[in-house]
Amino acid sequence: MSSHPDRECPLDGDTHPQDMIPSKKSAVLVDGVVLNGPTTDARAGEKFVEEACRLIMEEVVLKATDVSEKVCEWQPPEQLKQLLDLEMRDTGEPHHRLLELCQDVIRYSVKTNHPRFFNQLYAGLDYYSLVARFMTEALNPSVYTYEVSPVFLLVEEAVLKKMIEFIGWKEGDGIFNPGGSVSNMYAMNLARYKYCPEIKEKGLSGLPRLILFTSAECHYSMKKAASFLGIGTENVCFVETDGRGKMIPAELERQIWQASKEGAAPFLVCATSGTTVLGAFDPLDEIADICERHGLWLHVDASWGGSALMSRKYRKLLQGIHRADSVAWNPHKMLMAGIQCCALLVKDKSDLLKKCYSAKASYLFQQDKFYDISYDTGDKSIQCSRRPDAFKFWMTWKALGTLGLEERVNRALALSRYLAEEIKKREGFKLLLEPEYANICFWYIPPSLREMEEGPEFWEKLNLVAPAIKERMMKKGSLMLGYQPHRGKVNFFRQVVISPQVSREDMDFLLDEIDLLGRDM
Amino acid sequence: MSSHPDRECPLDGDTHPQDMIPSKKSAVLVDGVVLNGPTTDARAGEKFVEEACRLIMEEVVLKATDVSEKVCEWQPPEQLKQLLDLEMRDTGEPHHRLLELCQDVIRYSVKTNHPRFFNQLYAGLDYYSLVARFMTEALNPSVYTYEVSPVFLLVEEAVLKKMIEFIGWKEGDGIFNPGGSVSNMYAMNLARYKYCPEIKEKGLSGLPRLILFTSAECHYSMKKAASFLGIGTENVCFVETDGRGKMIPAELERQIWQASKEGAAPFLVCATSGTTVLGAFDPLDEIADICERHGLWLHVDASWGGSALMSRKYRKLLQGIHRADSVAWNPHKMLMAGIQCCALLVKDKSDLLKKCYSAKASYLFQQDKFYDISYDTGDKSIQCSRRPDAFKFWMTWKALGTLGLEERVNRALALSRYLAEEIKKREGFKLLLEPEYANICFWYIPPSLREMEEGPEFWEKLNLVAPAIKERMMKKGSLMLGYQPHRGKVNFFRQVVISPQVSREDMDFLLDEIDLLGRDM
Repeated sequence: MSSHPDRECPLDGDTHPQDMIPSKKSAVLVDGVVLNGPTTDARAGEKFVEEACRLIMEEVVLKATDVSEKVCEWQPPEQLKQLLDLEMRDTGEPHHRLLELCQDVIRYSVKTNHPRFFNQLYAGLDYYSLVARFMTEALNPSVYTYEVSPVFLLVEEAVLKKMIEFIGWKEGDGIFNPGGSVSNMYAMNLARYKYCPEIKEKGLSGLPRLILFTSAECHYSMKKAASFLGIGTENVCFVETDGRGKMIPAELERQIWQASKEGAAPFLVCATSGTTVLGAFDPLDEIADICERHGLWLHVDASWGGSALMSRKYRKLLQGIHRADSVAWNPHKMLMAGIQCCALLVKDKSDLLKKCYSAKASYLFQQDKFYDISYDTGDKSIQCSRRPDAFKFWMTWKALGTLGLEERVNRALALSRYLAEEIKKREGFKLLLEPEYANICFWYIPPSLREMEEGPEFWEKLNLVAPAIKERMMKKGSLMLGYQPHRGKVNFFRQVVISPQVSREDMDFLLDEIDLLGRDM
Repeated sequence: MSSHPDRECPLDGDTHPQDMIPSKKSAVLVDGVVLNGPTTDARAGEKFVEEACRLIMEEVVLKATDVSEKVCEWQPPEQLKQLLDLEMRDTGEPHHRLLELCQDVIRYSVKTNHPRFFNQLYAGLDYYSLVARFMTEALNPSVYTYEVSPVFLLVEEAVLKKMIEFIGWKEGDGIFNPGGSVSNMYAMNLARYKYCPEIKEKGLSGLPRLILFTSAECHYSMKKAASFLGIGTENVCFVETDGRGKMIPAELERQIWQASKEGAAPFLVCATSGTTVLGAFDPLDEIADICERHGLWLHVDASWGGSALMSRKYRKLLQGIHRADSVAWNPHKMLMAGIQCCALLVKDKSDLLKKCYSAKASYLFQQDKFYDISYDTGDKSIQCSRRPDAFKFWMTWKALGTLGLEERVNRALALSRYLAEEIKKREGFKLLLEPEYANICFWYIPPSLREMEEGPEFWEKLNLVAPAIKERMMKKGSLMLGYQPHRGKVNFFRQVVISPQVSREDMDFLLDEIDLLGRDM
């Protein structure tokens, strides 16, 4: 048994001897282990949790709205390894040392809820989902059977129902998954099952080559899914997009004909509502027409853009989404539910999800339970243990109401509009295209390049600007936004606006700061 | 804009007017939305988080060690829907109402960290991983690139390295996944990639029928994986087990020969270390010999049993595991890291994981970054956003040390031993088999059946006992453990011992309580 004063110490009765000292008269030893009484020092553990909570409150939650704090305290990997005490040893550390470690972890972590973190498709701190997440962690449920997760299963049902309503389906089914990528995989497998249910048992061997269609600007998870599911990345047909990043329907139809002519078996079209880089929305109605004509499953990857459905002003971006067979929608992005909160929604109500995914484990999904086992929804999942992600979104929705969520979306998009207009006004900034959503893509052209002709040399030099500014920005810690090359365009910045903690002043700061960091280039 | 006093209220300056009132001279409106200043009332939000934390501390954390509390407050689905206010409305709820909702969620949720929750392969409250989980939720990172998750990527590297050491490999690779089921899928896909790398691009169409082998007592995720990956459930060959639930090596080899003769292409053997129901360990050394002879990938699903590696006394259960090509191991089970914490570990060091899984998204995994991009490990994953699950385990390991973790495993297994011996001593209890691990499987035979001959009628009646006792136990809320039929055996209880908060007294209580609940049957 351990003798560390600060941790599990069954025979150390300092704090509360009544609980800790095994009752002598009935002490039972097996294999030299005393089995009487718990071996956890609960009081010390609780005190540690309380102290850590205070630290989290001060160092993360309170600073989440403080723009004078750094977004990150940058350290390169090898230096950071030196600064952190990462090694796990034979003996444990006392509580005060663990709290110092927690402090270091916070210090060197990127503050993704800082008002000037614009690097990914998630940002900001939502107090309500945060509380839901703390509750989830404390309760530590797994959402597969009603007996273990009664509340969280009902909450998931209620949230799915509401999301289905916003898509515009009368009814439907769905499941929360660990990521939009996984949701897209679910949809691909579901479409395949619908196309040929025998694949579940027989597999793909001996079948004609299945082929699917998506836009050239789709999320990279489509390739990952095709590879993982045994379809193969070469059987993902990338359909050309127009100048705004939207799939060209005529091109889609041409490719479907072409593939069929070549003997492949088309089974799925995946449209994107809110592409990752440009924030483009595919024309769903025209794509749905084509899917109907060819009898293809229509999946809409609205992981990023789905949240526009909450806004009466912007839901037109997804015009036609009710015609989809399945939709991926991640409230952890624009709606700030916390990573991860991702729903796959399915129009079918004939229990397709269950038929496609069930494996009927008899130790978990017993058929002779005393309650209505239709609430044991875990067999719809590829996971066994599953987190109650719907609950985080539910809490925020309860707190803000539909109108509050709508307000958030509208404000983020108004800020995007403002930033785009500012970019057009400022010297040295150049917008790639008018934003439809919360992605604002632009180049910063440093003074030395402003007079240069836009030829190969110009683009080659401009390509180096964004990475160089990003390096300076990270080392300074003043803000974080992403850059990338994209389909023949050299490196440009992608600014993403989400959080209600962000204001016009932050948009102005962003442009000022980029200019400050890059004006000597 | 909203006028709710308790939530986002940009024009309500009561709490901190300096932050909240837009500066009049530069107020900017776009689409009717005021863009100056944040729209979140940070003070009110912080206060809400603080109050909720107090509630969580009192209602969950402090009660986690109190056996006088109920494990669950059972309500059937339809009644629970009435009790909870699940509906999401147009307008939000004030903070005091949200706190009441939180209280209800806690009240009707199963207390999986209660000392008498024995229903699943996870249980108990670990204060250290809980703190790590709270930190994770507050920091809200996504683990794909070093720039966004510097600390958590280094922590994952350190934890994987240590786990690899415990498996007995000199080096290796790995990744944390949302569940053991997903880890098993990763392994299956990796084995397939190794067998035929072209499958990534070409898919399975036109290939011979791939086939894999696992024990008849394996986890149901093997079937789910085969179906999801396009291999087909019929191409999972279930190898017969002996009386203790262990795969019979001779049977395995016979089936490999048989499959090859039938023209199928064997590519993978999945052994199980710690089966779900019986807690059986397959003979890894003999299975590894067979895999070597046939050139097959050996994956070990040690999701449940892997934690025995922490104990010098019990690691012999996994004798030969160092010969595996991949291992799934879930520290969220026996080592209490919190759902989910699941590693897939891979012996290969030629970057097989990355080659198999990468899709090279240029917006995320830019090649022209200013730091060592080998730390951008996200492209090894099927996910895009990924949670920092390794961190939870790291914190517990730092707190307890290897010796503390070993102590936990040893104590859980000593308690299992104790319970098994008690079952043998007590009238009306019958052990299915001697436990090797922390699964204790037994029947309770009520007085009315004790004199009956063990014929068809006896088994038919006994089959009804466990479900009936389970119903009474749930309604009373005194404890929770699972039951299931299994391979010709009628419904029996499966008791699982994990948490250091559990003692001999709880084992005695368990048997007393089952007897109390079932003695009139």
